[in-house]
This record gives sequence, structure tokens and C-alpha cells, in this order.
Amino acid sequence: MIEITLPDGAIKKVAKGTTAMEVAQSISEGLARNVISASFNGETIETHTPLTESGKLVLYTWNDEQGKKAFWHSTSHVVAQALEELYPGIKLTIGPAIENGFYYDVDFGDHTISEKDFPTIEKKALEIARGKHDFKMREVSKKEALDYYRKQNNIYKVELIENLEDGEITFCDHSTFTDLCRGGHIPNTGHIKAIKILNVAGAYWRGDENNPQLTRVYGISFPKQKQLTEYLELLEEAKKRDHRKLGKELELFTFSQKVGQGLPLWLPKGAALRERLENFLKKAQKKAGYEMVVTPHIGQKQLYVTSGHYAKYGEDSFQPIHTPKEDEEFLLKPMNCPHHCEIYKNSPFSYKDLPIRYAEFGTVYRYEQSGELHGLTRVRGFTQDDAHIFCTPDQLNDEFKNVIDLSLYVLGSLGFENFTAQVSVRDLDKPEKYIGSVENWEKAEKAIIDAADEKGLDYVIESGEAAFYGPKLDFMVKDALGRQWQLGTIQVDYNLPERFDLTYKGNDNELHRPVMIHRAPFGSMERFVALLLEHTGGNFPLWLIPTQAIVLPVSEKHEKYAEKVLNSLENHEIRALIDKRNETVGKKIREAELKKIPFMLIVGENEEKANTLSVRRHGGEDLGSIAISEFSDLVAKEINSTLKSF
Amino acid sequence: MIEITLPDGAIKKVAKGTTAMEVAQSISEGLARNVISASFNGETIETHTPLTESGKLVLYTWNDEQGKKAFWHSTSHVVAQALEELYPGIKLTIGPAIENGFYYDVDFGDHTISEKDFPTIEKKALEIARGKHDFKMREVSKKEALDYYRKQNNIYKVELIENLEDGEITFCDHSTFTDLCRGGHIPNTGHIKAIKILNVAGAYWRGDENNPQLTRVYGISFPKQKQLTEYLELLEEAKKRDHRKLGKELELFTFSQKVGQGLPLWLPKGAALRERLENFLKKAQKKAGYEMVVTPHIGQKQLYVTSGHYAKYGEDSFQPIHTPKEDEEFLLKPMNCPHHCEIYKNSPFSYKDLPIRYAEFGTVYRYEQSGELHGLTRVRGFTQDDAHIFCTPDQLNDEFKNVIDLSLYVLGSLGFENFTAQVSVRDLDKPEKYIGSVENWEKAEKAIIDAADEKGLDYVIESGEAAFYGPKLDFMVKDALGRQWQLGTIQVDYNLPERFDLTYKGNDNELHRPVMIHRAPFGSMERFVALLLEHTGGNFPLWLIPTQAIVLPVSEKHEKYAEKVLNSLENHEIRALIDKRNETVGKKIREAELKKIPFMLIVGENEEKANTLSVRRHGGEDLGSIAISEFSDLVAKEINSTLKSF
Repeated sequence: MIEITLPDGAIKKVAKGTTAMEVAQSISEGLARNVISASFNGETIETHTPLTESGKLVLYTWNDEQGKKAFWHSTSHVVAQALEELYPGIKLTIGPAIENGFYYDVDFGDHTISEKDFPTIEKKALEIARGKHDFKMREVSKKEALDYYRKQNNIYKVELIENLEDGEITFCDHSTFTDLCRGGHIPNTGHIKAIKILNVAGAYWRGDENNPQLTRVYGISFPKQKQLTEYLELLEEAKKRDHRKLGKELELFTFSQKVGQGLPLWLPKGAALRERLENFLKKAQKKAGYEMVVTPHIGQKQLYVTSGHYAKYGEDSFQPIHTPKEDEEFLLKPMNCPHHCEIYKNSPFSYKDLPIRYAEFGTVYRYEQSGELHGLTRVRGFTQDDAHIFCTPDQLNDEFKNVIDLSLYVLGSLGFENFTAQVSVRDLDKPEKYIGSVENWEKAEKAIIDAADEKGLDYVIESGEAAFYGPKLDFMVKDALGRQWQLGTIQVDYNLPERFDLTYKGNDNELHRPVMIHRAPFGSMERFVALLLEHTGGNFPLWLIPTQAIVLPVSEKHEKYAEKVLNSLENHEIRALIDKRNETVGKKIREAELKKIPFMLIVGENEEKANTLSVRRHGGEDLGSIAISEFSDLVAKEINSTLKSF
Repeated sequence: MIEITLPDGAIKKVAKGTTAMEVAQSISEGLARNVISASFNGETIETHTPLTESGKLVLYTWNDEQGKKAFWHSTSHVVAQALEELYPGIKLTIGPAIENGFYYDVDFGDHTISEKDFPTIEKKALEIARGKHDFKMREVSKKEALDYYRKQNNIYKVELIENLEDGEITFCDHSTFTDLCRGGHIPNTGHIKAIKILNVAGAYWRGDENNPQLTRVYGISFPKQKQLTEYLELLEEAKKRDHRKLGKELELFTFSQKVGQGLPLWLPKGAALRERLENFLKKAQKKAGYEMVVTPHIGQKQLYVTSGHYAKYGEDSFQPIHTPKEDEEFLLKPMNCPHHCEIYKNSPFSYKDLPIRYAEFGTVYRYEQSGELHGLTRVRGFTQDDAHIFCTPDQLNDEFKNVIDLSLYVLGSLGFENFTAQVSVRDLDKPEKYIGSVENWEKAEKAIIDAADEKGLDYVIESGEAAFYGPKLDFMVKDALGRQWQLGTIQVDYNLPERFDLTYKGNDNELHRPVMIHRAPFGSMERFVALLLEHTGGNFPLWLIPTQAIVLPVSEKHEKYAEKVLNSLENHEIRALIDKRNETVGKKIREAELKKIPFMLIVGENEEKANTLSVRRHGGEDLGSIAISEFSDLVAKEINSTLKSF
């Protein structure tokens, strides 16, 4: 007998040779029906692998990341079989699961496939899946494995096998299909109820452009047809919400090849939106005791040598700016912190003056390769909602908690309820990656974890994800489509105060080093606006949206009244427009809907007589005929319900 | 007889050989007493020069720039004589009048002079002046002139004479002193009643650092002792108001050698002040139909090649920024206009959409040699309150007038009543200095002059002062000390629309070129804040000043009430502080005075009982004991009296 420990701590005594699936069955038939993958002592195993020693067993269903991974990896075998049957003579290479689905890289030889072939492939793969074929792993000798693929002239698999040792080579069989495979499958193909080939793309063998080009076939699969339908709807929705598309439609920002790629130009509506976001944060920051500063966008190279940024990034970043006659070298600033340190150094501080909190909407420039640029999420110039807090070590925990409060307030006011935090600490195995003393790193990591615990944050600790100068806490936000975004960051830093020789006079009259916190609740204005666009699909919170209401006169006769209404709305600080075009109200409403304007205010004969508005909400809800003051109250109430004061 | 035309058009018939002074005497004895210089047909002459032909005569007194110039130039002769008498063997070089006073560059040989010698020099010079010696010009031959100075071993004067032609060499004699001189003196030394040697500095002969170093003796003189006293007071006041000194005292801005010279760091109080200025202008601009945009601080080199800035400034400016792997070159933006042109190009416009007005507080970078840098007035990075108006040619005149209105509103709200305008047009003799067609230049110059006329501006036209891309109108402001500052600028530009191929669709359905106006009412935030500091001595208008009031509890007992008062002031949006230090109220008041805080609010036993404040104004005025609401009304009223809405 062996002892199997389950994740809840329960221990099962079972006969040696019992499989994971049998353990599941011994718990319940329902569980066994859903189990599709397992791990034993941290290693992925097949559900039919006999367990030969005591250890920890985890059973996975579709709801687990591990379960999905096994599901999609297994589907890649099925799709590979379908491709072989449809296109004889093709050469398979590798077929892993990815974040959403799987791919298989295939040398199609003379065949070419395109979107019109997808339904045939899907049909064939699904036929195979319905056969409920078991996935069976078997060990093969290196010679046997090489012979198998040499016979097929598959140079790719041969190359893979040549790099493996005898004793670690396994094949996986299902139906009539065999593949070189390390394992991690679902019990049988019958679980796969829906398969979608998503697209094909070119990919070099082993990612090297000197190698032959293969065709990468992307797909996804589900245990239920309904899940596929939902997923495809989500994909469609994500396309509609692409911030690059919405940014153009809503006239928020643009790029110019002449100005330079990755350098956004904010159009009037985008600049106004951005300013509202900035003012919102400024107001909260003021209450939280921050002071604004303004610093230049360049600094002498020596500044970044002092800060350590030059050694870390200098070579890979925008190169130094020289002056014509004098021996000076400047860099575009990649960070605001060195400038803020120099401001701190401008005055002597005592412990009574601390914490000092300098905030700046500081535009920084970082070189990204042109291929990496993407809308507002990967740019070469962006504005951080940056601040640096200089405090005593005793104040660190409180300050860190205050920053968490501010960050949660910011996220909440913008409609993000679904977030987690990630605490990024050192990789203890790679001390050469970090600057500063081990003692300081330990202190800083503890300060972050304590604050996160005290604030009851839902967080994970990620080793090796810290910045080179200190550990950090990042907020991860889930958007309306369930996608995860890394957003605001809070970092503790013992290093810059050391490098810039920052001091304060303690109550012992001696000079001490302050601790620094870097923080940016939005992350950057660019990235945050991109996320907001994708999260809301352009239906921004009412307090933030560029145009809150549009007045739609029924005919030219009512234009004068419409203007009176507009004027009155402006006096109530409601951002509104008039659509005076000679079009039907129906058409005007349809266009206002497309422009995502929250309120359409229709004014005609009745409204003018009664001094009212007929209010229609974006989406169609009819709020009836109400007075302007009533409408203004409604807007104010709705704004106050999302935008609480800090 | 000859005919002498006076500036008022009057014609006097006088005998050939009559002097300017005799003409003055023929008008009135009073005038003759005050005339100290003259010009005939545009050329400066001596007042005793015989007039030998008909022509235009202008007589100058101390109140004319020309009169002062003659006065100070003449004093430099007197001071030179004093120096020669005090320090035998020195070599005189040149001694011109400057904006305020005069200097004489002297090779002192073995002598050195310092501040302690100034009274002796002043005394000696004044003694000479009291001798009422006439200044008498005489023509000398080149040989005679060379002999005269060779005898004295004066290599400098010899060098000067060698570069002159026979027939154009004149000496000026007064008392026992003779100098090489082109003329332009007052009648006699007796007019000089007060002389002050201001300072000495090193200066290279002919400004060339390869030449011998001379001592430049700076001085000033006046026709009345009282005027010197007033001038020295003004100098003292100017030193007190030096924006670099005040900026430090009021903690507005600083510089860091590590960040780089000429790159201001705005401290919290300065950044807040700057933001209030920006918000003030934003509000007015919004009413005037401007839209804010945001653009990056760099642009591809090609952008500035297109705009023409690269050809004009590229070599002498901050050098291009290269990227590590890709073949890209960026420049720090020296101007915002190319970026705004690219935003304009982002959308197609019809004549109905125009004017388009893009505004941005855009930070630009321009290289200045380190020796040229000066506080906030000559910097390497500064933020322009920039905007670009794109309009049809028909709209140009109205738009230009609107910009004049906005500029006057801005100046008025900041307490500048004393200003003139300068219209800068081409130098018609140097067409190579300008880009764009003659026709467009003519149109643009006319548009500016018409608008200035229609707005009744007090302006002068300066030929050759235009920007290379278009003519402009600058506002010149006189500060509280009577010093002139060049401030806000409005420029018409037909060139950039051409270079960027900007178009709009006219009502003829054809594409046309818009006209562009560049404008910046403040000029730049840096320069404007410097001017405001020097103009107000730090006593900013109440709406703008960092701290509007300070609460001074009489003792610790009243701290709680003081805090209640502070809280209430904050609710009334009054920016206030508490001085809780354990000091006497007298000391607290004195320090609040030094910090230029407009209101000191003293709270003690009586105030707490009556729920009032004892209000003392900066400068000492006692406003008695009033309720908080009354004080808040007083502040609001005072603000509204200077800060009218646009």
C-alpha cells in the first residue's frame, strides 16, 4: 500500500499501481468524470499512470489552468492527425498548448492551407475526437524513435530526438496516430467536443530566421460547444474594443510617421480625457499630502550614471544628446526618480518634515524596437502618474498602506472591481541582477508583504520579478473580457537614497538615509487609457467621457431652444454638443449611439413648450420628458455614485 | 539763409552757420538750457556744429534716449581724464555709452583698481566736470592722430586709427584732455552733476580672448544728484527683486548641476504657482474656442527638415538622438508647431470646421551656451503656453484681433498696465534670411499691422526683427522698475502650411491652404514667472500667490482654534498655513512679512471667544477683528477685482 496526500491534506491509502483516475473514482464518480489531468509530487502525469510510491496528488478539471493545458495539448495531437490524413506527406514538428488554445508548426511541403480549409480540418479533427481514443504513453529507445521519423523523412522530429537521451524519449499513441511527446494528456479524445482553427501564420523552425519557414496552425478547443461559441463572441468583442480602433473612432489619439512611431499625439478629445484623469488623481493626491513638482525631460548622462540607470539601460536606450560646442551629454529621461532625488537634495530636511511626497505627471522616453510597438500599450514616450515618497524607515509601512489605499480608490473610481496584486521579489539564485545590500532587500520585501497583508490584498509572490533596484507590488486588473493587465506599481527603494546620498536629520541630530517609495496608480496615462478603452469599449464612466450628452433638435425650428438647452447644460458643467444637421432624429440617435454618448436629449415642439428634454440613454432606455435641472441632478447623482471623494 | 525744419514741422529761416544751440535759443532760453544734443538730417551732431545747409534738426534733452547717450558718452571722456590724472601712464581704448550709463576699457598697466578706489575717481571726475569745459571737436590728419598716440605708446588707439581713412578722423578736446572720438557730446561738462562708478570687470581688447585683457570701468552720471540717488535705490530694489534670489527665498524653483545647467526644477510652491497660471489661461482659452492637445518632446529629424527648423538651427542646437539598432534619428523639439501641423493633418477639414485652435503647454528644448544662461530668463528647456490657429485667409484678421484681446486680458489680470507692442517685419535688404514667397510676407505683414491698428495698440514697427518664417507682433511690458521685457508673441505664418501641405476644402469644393498663427501670451512659463517675480518683488496677485494667509496662534492654548480656522479657510478655498512654533506673535509676523504672505490672521483669547480673526495685511495695515466668512468675502472680492473673467 502507498499513501496518497490530496491538496486538502486528506490522505488515501491505496494499492501500489493505482492510477490518478482510480483515486478520483474512489472519491466520487462525478469527480472522475471531470478529471482530465493530474500531477504527482509536482510533476505532470497521465491520469492512467500507475502510482508506485507515496506522495502528493493533484487532480485537475477543465476549470484549472493545468487542466486546460492538458486539454489543448491533447487537441493538438488530434488536429495533427487530421492534418496528416488530409494532407499526406506533411511533416509535423512541435504542437504545444498556449495561453488560449494551442498551435502546431507544420511543414506542409507543396500544400498550402488558408481560412477556407479550416472547416474541413475542424470536421476531420472532431470526427477523430468522437472516437474516444485513449492517449497512451510509451517509452521508446532513441534508435527506435529515430528510425520511426527517418522513415517519414521528418528531419524536424529527428533533430529533436537527436538532442534527447535514451531513457527520456516517449511516444504518445491515440487512434492510428503516434507523436513524439513528453506527456500531459487528457484521458481520451472524447472530452473534446468543439474545435476551432483560428488562423495560420508563418513561423521559422526553432524561431530562427535562417531555418525553413513552417506554417503555424493556431486552434482552440472546448469540452462544450457552447463554450466555443462564447469564446468566439469574446474574440469578436475584443476586436471591437481594440483600443487602437476605438482611439481612432472616438478621436482620442493618433500617430504620425513623420513625428515617429510609438510617439502618440493626443487629439483634443483625448487630451481633455487625459486631463480629467490627471485632475482626478491630483485632487486625491493633494488630500493624501502629495506636492506636485515639474522637472525637465532630459538630464545629464552623469545623473543616470549616479542613479545606475545608465549602466543598466544606457546601451539599449535612446543614445546621448550632445551639445554643439561644449562637452556635455544629456539623456532623454527614462525615469523621473533621479530628478526628484535632486529636488529632495535641494533642501535640508529633518525627521519632522518627512514624509516628503513629490508627484509629477512626468513624460519619460524609453526605446522599444519598432516591432514591439503596439498602440498605446507599447510606446516610446509615455507619461507616468509618478510620485516619490521619501520617509523614515518607521514610516515605510504606513506610507505603503496609504499608497495601497490611494491605488484602490483610483481603480474603484474607474470601475475596476476585479483585481489582484503581485509582489515581485528577488530571484535569490541570481544576486548579480540586483543592486544594493541584501539587508536592504530583505527589509524592503518585508515592508511590502506586511502592508499587503495588513490591507488584506489578494496577492501572489513572484520570485525574480523585482526591479533591479528594489522589490515592488503591482496591481493586476481583469478587464470586462476577463483579460489580465498589469497596472499601477508601488516600489520600495533603498538604493537611490544611497546613490544620491539623500539624508535627513533624525531626532538624535544625526544624519540618516530616508527610504524611497516609487508609485504610479495608473501606471502611465497611455497604458491606462488603452486599458480603459478595452475595458469599457469606449463607454467611459460618465465623469470621464468626452461628451456626456448630445442635444438633438427634431427640426430646424427647435434649434434656438436646443441652443438654450446647451447653454444651460454648460452652466451645469455638463459637457454637451448639438447635432444641428438636417437629418432625421432617428439617424442622429443612431450616430450618437455609435459615438457612445451616454445621453441623447431630444427637443421638439412638446419639449420646447414644457421647457423640458426627452432623455434617451445610450443603449436605448427612455427616461421620458424631464426638466433641465432634473436632468442635471440625474447626471450629478450618477457621477457621485462612481466618483467618491478620497 | 537756410531753412531748418523742426520735428513739429515748423520751419525756421536762419543764417548759414547757425548752430543747433542757437536755434534752441531762438525758440526759448528754457529750451536752450536743457538741450544737450542734436541731430541734423538723421546724423548726430554737436550742439555747436554750424549748420551749413537746409535740413531737419532735432534737439534732444536728458529726457530723450539720444540726450542720455550724449550725456553718458561725454561723461566717459571726463572719467577717462580723471583716470589718466590719477593713474599716469594708463592706456585708454574705447568708452561708449550703453543702455544705462557708459564704460571705458582701460589698460591699467601696473595699476589695479577696485571698489575702494571708486570714490576717488568719482571725486576727481566731478571736479573736472564742475570746470564747465566745452567739448570741442576737431578734424586731424591720420598722421597727426597716429603721432599723437604713438608718442603715448597707446597701441590700441593706434590700431583704431590705422583702420580709419584720412578725412574721417576727429579728436575731441575738453579741459586738458583729448580723445579720438566720432562726436556726439553735450555742450560742456558742467551739465554733469553726479557721477557714480558702478563696477569694474575684465574685458578682452576687441572682445577677442587672444588679445590683452583690459579693465572695463562701468559708470553712470546724471544732471541732478537726486537722480543718481533714485537710480541707486532702483538698482538696490532690482537686486532685491532679482528673480533668482526671490525664487530661492520663496522656494519656487532651483537648478541642479547634476541635472544640467539651464534646466529648471520646479519646487512644490513654484509648480503650484505655475499650474494656477496655466489653469487661468486654459480657462480663458476654452472660452476663446481653443482645444488642448498633447504631443511628445521629440520628433524625427525629418519632421524638422520638413519644417525648415533643421536647416536653420540644426547644427547649433542639441544634436540628434540615435536609436541603438534601427536607423532612426530624433531631435528634442525646439518648437511645438511641427507636431501641431501633424495633428491638423490627421483629419480632413472643410472651411466650416475652421478656425482650428490647438493649444498646448509644450516644453521645448533649445541649446544656449552655458555663458548665456541666466536664471529662468535664459534657459535650455522651457514650457511655452503655445497655440496654433489654422484659419482661412478671410478669418486671419479676426483671429489676430482675438489673440490680441486674449493677450491683453492675460497681461491685465496679472497687473501689467504699462506695455507697448512691436511689429517685427522683414529686413527688405536681406531677403536671403527668410523662407517663403514675397507675396505671402506682404499679406502677413499687412494682416498684423491692420489688426494692431484696429485694436488701437501702441506699437512700433521694427524692420529685420521678424522670425525667419513670418512676421510677428510682440508685447513689450514695462515692469515696476520701468525695465522693458519682451513677452507674449503672435506670429503669422504662411510657410508651415505650405511645407506640411496642410489643406482645407473650401466652399468651392477645392483644396486651399490654411493660414497659421503662432501665439503665446505668457511667452514661456519660465520667463513669465521670472518677470512676475521682478515686477511684483514676490508680492504676487492674491489669486496667484502660493500662501494667501497664515494663521498665527498667540499661544499653544489657541492652536486648536487655529486649526479650526485653517480648516474653514480650506473649505473656502483659501490657501493658508499655521505657524505653530513656540515664538512670539511679533516674530511670527515679521517672518510672515518676509515671506510676503498677504494676510496674517492672529488668533488669541478674544478671537476664540468671538469666533473671529484679527487680520493684518502684508505691509502692516490692521483690518481689525472680523468673522471668518467676512474674511473669506474680502479675499474673494479682492481676487475678483483683478481676475475678471474673459
